[in-house]
Amino acid sequence: MNSLYLPLVAGIISTIFAFVMLRRTLGFSQGNDRMKELSKYVQEGASAFLEEEAKKIFLVAVILAAVLGIIFQSFKYPIVLLFGALVSEAAGVIGMYAATRANARVAAGAESGLSSAFKVAFSSGSVMGLAVAGFSLTGLAVVMLVFKSSFVFEGITDLSKAFGRISYIDGVMILSSYSLGASLIALFDRVGGGMYTKAADMSADLVGKIEEHIEEDDPRNPATIADNVGDNVGDVAGLGADILESYVASIVSAIVLAIFMKFADHGTMTESQYYGLILLPVLIAGAGVLSSLIGVLVVASLKSKDARKSLSFGNLFTGGLVLASVAIVIGIAAPDYPFKDAFLINPEFVSRWRLFFAIASGLIAGIIISKLSEYYTSDDYKPTRKLAKDTQSGVAINITGGLALGMGSTLWPVITLAIAILAAYLSAGVYGIAIAALGMLSFVGYIVSVDSYGPVADNAGGIAQMANLDPKVRKLTDRLDSVGNTTAAIGKGFAIGSAAFAALSLIVSYIWGSAGTAEEIINNPVINLVEPYTLIGILLGGMLPFFFTSLLIKGVADTANLMIVEIRRQFKETPGIRTGEAVPDYRRCIEITTKGAVSRMLTPGVVAIASPFIVGFLFGRSAVAGLLVGGLSSAIMIAIFSANSGGAWDNAKKFIETGEYGGKGTPTHEAAVVGDTVGDPLKDTVGPSMDILIKLMSVVSLVFGSLFPVTPFFM
Amino acid sequence: MNSLYLPLVAGIISTIFAFVMLRRTLGFSQGNDRMKELSKYVQEGASAFLEEEAKKIFLVAVILAAVLGIIFQSFKYPIVLLFGALVSEAAGVIGMYAATRANARVAAGAESGLSSAFKVAFSSGSVMGLAVAGFSLTGLAVVMLVFKSSFVFEGITDLSKAFGRISYIDGVMILSSYSLGASLIALFDRVGGGMYTKAADMSADLVGKIEEHIEEDDPRNPATIADNVGDNVGDVAGLGADILESYVASIVSAIVLAIFMKFADHGTMTESQYYGLILLPVLIAGAGVLSSLIGVLVVASLKSKDARKSLSFGNLFTGGLVLASVAIVIGIAAPDYPFKDAFLINPEFVSRWRLFFAIASGLIAGIIISKLSEYYTSDDYKPTRKLAKDTQSGVAINITGGLALGMGSTLWPVITLAIAILAAYLSAGVYGIAIAALGMLSFVGYIVSVDSYGPVADNAGGIAQMANLDPKVRKLTDRLDSVGNTTAAIGKGFAIGSAAFAALSLIVSYIWGSAGTAEEIINNPVINLVEPYTLIGILLGGMLPFFFTSLLIKGVADTANLMIVEIRRQFKETPGIRTGEAVPDYRRCIEITTKGAVSRMLTPGVVAIASPFIVGFLFGRSAVAGLLVGGLSSAIMIAIFSANSGGAWDNAKKFIETGEYGGKGTPTHEAAVVGDTVGDPLKDTVGPSMDILIKLMSVVSLVFGSLFPVTPFFM
Repeated sequence: MNSLYLPLVAGIISTIFAFVMLRRTLGFSQGNDRMKELSKYVQEGASAFLEEEAKKIFLVAVILAAVLGIIFQSFKYPIVLLFGALVSEAAGVIGMYAATRANARVAAGAESGLSSAFKVAFSSGSVMGLAVAGFSLTGLAVVMLVFKSSFVFEGITDLSKAFGRISYIDGVMILSSYSLGASLIALFDRVGGGMYTKAADMSADLVGKIEEHIEEDDPRNPATIADNVGDNVGDVAGLGADILESYVASIVSAIVLAIFMKFADHGTMTESQYYGLILLPVLIAGAGVLSSLIGVLVVASLKSKDARKSLSFGNLFTGGLVLASVAIVIGIAAPDYPFKDAFLINPEFVSRWRLFFAIASGLIAGIIISKLSEYYTSDDYKPTRKLAKDTQSGVAINITGGLALGMGSTLWPVITLAIAILAAYLSAGVYGIAIAALGMLSFVGYIVSVDSYGPVADNAGGIAQMANLDPKVRKLTDRLDSVGNTTAAIGKGFAIGSAAFAALSLIVSYIWGSAGTAEEIINNPVINLVEPYTLIGILLGGMLPFFFTSLLIKGVADTANLMIVEIRRQFKETPGIRTGEAVPDYRRCIEITTKGAVSRMLTPGVVAIASPFIVGFLFGRSAVAGLLVGGLSSAIMIAIFSANSGGAWDNAKKFIETGEYGGKGTPTHEAAVVGDTVGDPLKDTVGPSMDILIKLMSVVSLVFGSLFPVTPFFM
Repeated sequence: MNSLYLPLVAGIISTIFAFVMLRRTLGFSQGNDRMKELSKYVQEGASAFLEEEAKKIFLVAVILAAVLGIIFQSFKYPIVLLFGALVSEAAGVIGMYAATRANARVAAGAESGLSSAFKVAFSSGSVMGLAVAGFSLTGLAVVMLVFKSSFVFEGITDLSKAFGRISYIDGVMILSSYSLGASLIALFDRVGGGMYTKAADMSADLVGKIEEHIEEDDPRNPATIADNVGDNVGDVAGLGADILESYVASIVSAIVLAIFMKFADHGTMTESQYYGLILLPVLIAGAGVLSSLIGVLVVASLKSKDARKSLSFGNLFTGGLVLASVAIVIGIAAPDYPFKDAFLINPEFVSRWRLFFAIASGLIAGIIISKLSEYYTSDDYKPTRKLAKDTQSGVAINITGGLALGMGSTLWPVITLAIAILAAYLSAGVYGIAIAALGMLSFVGYIVSVDSYGPVADNAGGIAQMANLDPKVRKLTDRLDSVGNTTAAIGKGFAIGSAAFAALSLIVSYIWGSAGTAEEIINNPVINLVEPYTLIGILLGGMLPFFFTSLLIKGVADTANLMIVEIRRQFKETPGIRTGEAVPDYRRCIEITTKGAVSRMLTPGVVAIASPFIVGFLFGRSAVAGLLVGGLSSAIMIAIFSANSGGAWDNAKKFIETGEYGGKGTPTHEAAVVGDTVGDPLKDTVGPSMDILIKLMSVVSLVFGSLFPVTPFFM
């Protein structure tokens, strides 16, 4: 267990560098007073939202922790849960701190050229990236070191505690409690942030652009600051918490599977093999964190004037570094692997390199899915171009076409995913699936850095516009932003792919963890697909993502409606706003969006947490297994559909704005704007929330699974 | 087996009355020459489409029959398959013959009042209703009598034939081949007809209403006849074939399950119990057919002036009659039932009345689902009213709101379905699930009569408009049509509910039928949910309905685009059309829609048929089980979502047209029209196709399931 200090050190190094990059970011010039003032508004708005949101989240977290503590009569698990939540929240807070302080600085940097603007933007993005990787790994290593005794080889052979039907393994509970804490933050950050950003965006556009005919980011629009705050809370904090959660879940599920493998192993696994399997995921993560750090530092020090080139180079460089370091870790630390057929009966020790194949299959799938989503949404390719062309026939055809495009775009990503799951499984069983997810996520530090840099550039553009800087500046930030969009698409592919792999591993862990008896664990539990409880679980699970989507869309729409009323009121009651003589009440708008988004995020959150409980207690553990699998399938489809429909609508509009089919001001462009507006909440609120919905449900089931009756309550 | 003559006679009686009602329909006056001429156009267009469509369908059917014959080295199965297809096609042809000849007659009847218009419309609708029930039951009884020896008690104990891995039960193959024939017709009729009707409708509206500012059903619109043909081929022929297929599938799956129960029974089932179980479904169907006939005759002879009242009375009366007659059949013919726990191990004979409870749970679920869909889509309730109100904020909000409404509306129907499935299962095991589907469908003769009457009334309105009849006439046909819409909603609830039950029974049958060995059948095959092959099957199955939806929408859009070009060309090249001096070339439009729809229906059809084969041969039978279950879940969600989104958009528009929020001519109304246009292909092409997609996939799997390897090809 002493090798845990290695990832601990890696995590601490990454954490230190997060602060170094923050210092570096804060060292750049903020530009003139107007820019400082605007940035200040955004900072205050973002902090206010984060605070409101955190209050509600921690209320839910404390309740859940209390339930956990009471049921399992233990202080350990609730504390670990709250610790997991704190770690995730802390990463979000520091990342957002950097991002909201970088916007004016990027705009100021852009005044002296692209290269310096890129440097500021990337530095600030890397604060979030390094914090996500560093905090989460440090936290996990600390938890495992503190509760070392729960993971020792000898302890695993027994159920550590048993009262009533509840029987569980201590180490599994500790790890999944940590993961649950991170999941809670991720769900609410994604859902709350996603609602905030789109409600602000839609209302600012609908009143500003359409009714008042003023441009995006015009300081006369009372919602413009809220809109810029939204970029930070949705795309920086939300994204960071989401990826952190995936990362933790994939490490945790791999370790949990290793523990169950040991338990179900009929005594053939040796001590060194066991430790090899439970430490490997943390070591791989550590190697990934260090590789990402190097990648980030290299990109941040590049002097190239071409941001796209720098990032592409960074992708390749970091990806290669990660693969190489993972290979080294496997070569040194992985045991010969006790691979077995379905569910690991009949063990047969095979080469450790099969683990590497599993990781590679995950990585390749992530890349293919990203490329496919680029194909469906970029205006360089046929689908989006055809959508733009068909938009000439009017709004209805634009909407219908976008829906068809998104739904049809599920075909190849799902086939890719299916083949990759199979490849990972055939290489190294269910452990292989978990480790493949980890492979996709091991350059998380780098990916989050790149993904967070986009919204910062976007915000800088807003500041430039509002502060009336030279249009050249806005052009430069727009170029940075557009590069960010492309790289963000890559992030999305990995997010969906890794969520699928991580959720699958969690589901398998749940099924083991919810086994009624130790004998059943050893004899490898079977969930019969055609048992009616499983079937109704699948139906209910298939339904949940649809219902969840409707809650999200309604939340965005209702909050946007409140905002629309307020913006109109300000324009009406203070005519000076329109002429630029009066300053709009930005704070009031921020307050309304904050309140709206925070209050609307609770219902979907509670639905996600409560549904495994309800189904579990009513219909038993097979039904929950069905719920998770049905939910996974449905969530993947809606995630791909909404991301690609939304992306295609967005880019079809942008394509038309370049002058195609008449360009701006034509009915075709107007129709494309409607499509873009419909797509906005789909791609930025619904799509990203799907991944975390299914992961949270899986983690909740894993933690509380041992409580669910084997047969339904009425049998 | 001699009691098979009872349902045979019931089927023949229903068939005879179908012709009686046809004679009665043809006996009414057709009105003036203009009306005759217009009706003639519609008749020709509908026949031309049916013919084109039939050519392609029979090509596919013959290929599939040949494959079946070659693989199983038998002439029986292909012949039964083609017979099943012919029976379904024949019912469609006669129903459409009546419907297309009734339109002018209803319009003529409306000149002398509602009561006589209703009489004509309902008579013509009942031709389809009685033909669907009569033909299908007669055909099934004939097949079972001709191949009597395949169903005898002694024959069932052995696998009748075995070469290589293929092992199957003769009686199961015969029944499922019949069902497959009906499924093929249903899929292509639904998909082809659905594309036709919406392509014609959308293009007629987009050019006629929006560009040329002429009313619906204006004879100057070149697409108007095609639009009226569409009502017949989509809503009459498509619906008839669909419900016929559900009906056959639910009877067949109940009998097939009974055969497997006997096979897996360890020899405790007596001869009389066996015959009781395999004959019960046919006897229930027979009782249902006769009850429906009585219901139809009573409604057709009512002299009431209130069509809504007549139909409501008819619903209650027929429903009561069906329940009573089913109770009598169960009392007389059902055996004490060998109910067992999960999958019928540990038999224990229980009261035959449990079967009645299963049927009741199916019926109640059907009613609840119908009421829910009324709640979500009728402008009498909050959801659609809120949608109409929010439409004031513009198109984007209307679209977003409609999507959210539809997706959210999956919650309660799915919960209802889950509870009903459980109730049916707990009452009488998997056989209970099949028999519950049959219960929902046993008044199929009546339901199809009512459902077919709506489009006839719709068409009559078109004829009245085009023939320039007194506006009073149009008002009357509109009233008839609106009553039809309400009752059609009830039909939709039953269609979705019964499809879910029927598909589930077919899936269970498939799993039994694809068992590798006789031993496995006896020991009750288990499909492990968490085996990777099952999981990837579920993912692929979950994806298919999304992909299928995109094919359908694209088919509609592409065909509509071809039509738009043609309509614009006619208006441009023949200016006399606009002034009413020249007659548009209706035939050319009909040709284009026919060609477009027929060519576009092939891909989705082949996808539905081929996917179980591909997945089965590549990944084995567990993957196919996953494919079917994942597909079922996804298809149910999309069916409910698209039906309710589409319905709500439609009715929100109608609500606004009554003068709310400014009424016609306002931007709000314009926005609502866009929503309606987007919803049209969803509710009338996509939604109805989902039920049959999943049933067809299940039947294909049942027929060919014994070919699929137990493990994937690479293992």
